[in-house]
Amino acid sequence: MEEGAAPQLIGLDWGTSSLRAFLMREGQVLETRQAGDGIQRLAGGDAAAFERAFAAISGDWLGRWPRLPVVACGMVGSAQGWREVPYAKSPADAQAIARQATTLTTASGTHVLIAPGVLHQGAHGAPDVMRGEETQVVGALQRDGAWSRAACLVMPGTHSKWVQVRSGRIEALATHMTGELFALLRTHSILGRLIPADAARPDDAPPSPGFARGVDAARQDHGELLHTLFSARTLALTQQLPKEQIADYLSGLLIGSELVSALAQSPPDVPLVLVGEPALCLRYGQALEALQRGAAATLGNTAPDRLWALARAAGLAVG
Amino acid sequence: MEEGAAPQLIGLDWGTSSLRAFLMREGQVLETRQAGDGIQRLAGGDAAAFERAFAAISGDWLGRWPRLPVVACGMVGSAQGWREVPYAKSPADAQAIARQATTLTTASGTHVLIAPGVLHQGAHGAPDVMRGEETQVVGALQRDGAWSRAACLVMPGTHSKWVQVRSGRIEALATHMTGELFALLRTHSILGRLIPADAARPDDAPPSPGFARGVDAARQDHGELLHTLFSARTLALTQQLPKEQIADYLSGLLIGSELVSALAQSPPDVPLVLVGEPALCLRYGQALEALQRGAAATLGNTAPDRLWALARAAGLAVG
Repeated sequence: MEEGAAPQLIGLDWGTSSLRAFLMREGQVLETRQAGDGIQRLAGGDAAAFERAFAAISGDWLGRWPRLPVVACGMVGSAQGWREVPYAKSPADAQAIARQATTLTTASGTHVLIAPGVLHQGAHGAPDVMRGEETQVVGALQRDGAWSRAACLVMPGTHSKWVQVRSGRIEALATHMTGELFALLRTHSILGRLIPADAARPDDAPPSPGFARGVDAARQDHGELLHTLFSARTLALTQQLPKEQIADYLSGLLIGSELVSALAQSPPDVPLVLVGEPALCLRYGQALEALQRGAAATLGNTAPDRLWALARAAGLAVG
Repeated sequence: MEEGAAPQLIGLDWGTSSLRAFLMREGQVLETRQAGDGIQRLAGGDAAAFERAFAAISGDWLGRWPRLPVVACGMVGSAQGWREVPYAKSPADAQAIARQATTLTTASGTHVLIAPGVLHQGAHGAPDVMRGEETQVVGALQRDGAWSRAACLVMPGTHSKWVQVRSGRIEALATHMTGELFALLRTHSILGRLIPADAARPDDAPPSPGFARGVDAARQDHGELLHTLFSARTLALTQQLPKEQIADYLSGLLIGSELVSALAQSPPDVPLVLVGEPALCLRYGQALEALQRGAAATLGNTAPDRLWALARAAGLAVG
């Protein structure tokens, strides 16, 4: 790396199932690293486990540039994370979120600024929360000013988040445990036993026809998910679904179930913006079309933009 | 055991998560044994794994009475079981089920008669299947002739079965993956992480108030299970649900979701009969009351009755 291109920030997107680190300068990503050390793997250990994961992914960066500021967002700030950071409460804009961030100091003296999540308490029912996705929302809103006025952001993942934005503020959110349930069923359930060991992982490939069949089953399902899930088994047992397509059928069934129920709770007249990994957004886009509802746009993960903005808003010396 | 009380049959109730063996004489159970060797633990191995589990639970019985006939029902006859036995097709009565049973011979020369399951193919949608519960249905119908005319049997478990009976025949069935999903979420999900290690297991104790709250959440849920599940986490994180009650809340939410959706698909005018483990039937009974629908009766597991009847119907010399 050239002398003149010294980095100014380490940004960490530290979620339930993975840790991504961005070495940044002037808002641009110089280098990206990814590890499997999501908080679900580290939780239950003590802070030392998080320090080790942090050192493993960025220790050499800090060895070379010891005074580099570090900002982190995601589940790392949860009760199961490295340090619990209280939530900002909805309605919340970018400034309200930055004000709520907290700094911890590692055993080796590095300061890490951890973003808060957002908590939404609706008029009735249980509260809902997110950590990490709020940084994606603000990053996404910077792309198109019209979305700040009114948009519904859908962020597929381990825990999919549906975020209603109005007047630049996060006004409501709902979590769907779609990705986690898919992984549980695929890995640990009797449905997973029928899936050939060499079947392509749905996240890595365009879906097979089983995906559309799963979406269709969700569309016809009347809130009977616990029952309909079993059809992944019975269709395969009766040779009506190739075993290579079971995982995609299950993926379509779960994503379809999320979409059918979440769309019923969302205002019909605001643009729907998908934010996330391309292969997963492709699946959500296909399922939305099958449900006669298109996405206004599909964006990649905008966490680096927002981590940069968070560092500036918090007054860190990043130029 | 007295000389005159020599047993006449070994009955095996061999399901997804457990194996129960009954030593029987004249329709009565002389001794019951239970092991954790459900097919989910043994599947993926070869037949030898099933032989070892069979020998472990009944080897001494067969050592003493080598010519004792053995009948088995449950997932042991599935594609992941010891030997796949083709399903009897609905509508099916007791005789049709007995005709479909298959005999295997172990390496040591013991004959084991394995019951078929029942397959139901509705007018539209995916087929549904059961293995083992069909023996409970027929056993239950022997208790009250009125149920043979028309009843809805609800058998809670790893995979809950809803069986519609009319004119002595199994006419329809629907599976709900409630128990398996509860175990997956409790053991492997982020929801389970919040549950104290020493919290009472729901199956072993009367439910805490969290159970009724979970049922109520399911009642108000509009087919949004993937979303509502997350409330087990957010209610606990915000101190609105004691951590000791999370497991019961989750249990109530899943059982409630099963009941709400299955009742919507069942005829309202037939008696509802609960068949299964008392602690689990207690939960289903409480949830049914919360939904303004009572059970006509609650029965224990009637598998021994039916295993006996199956052995006789198959012409085995059991007196």
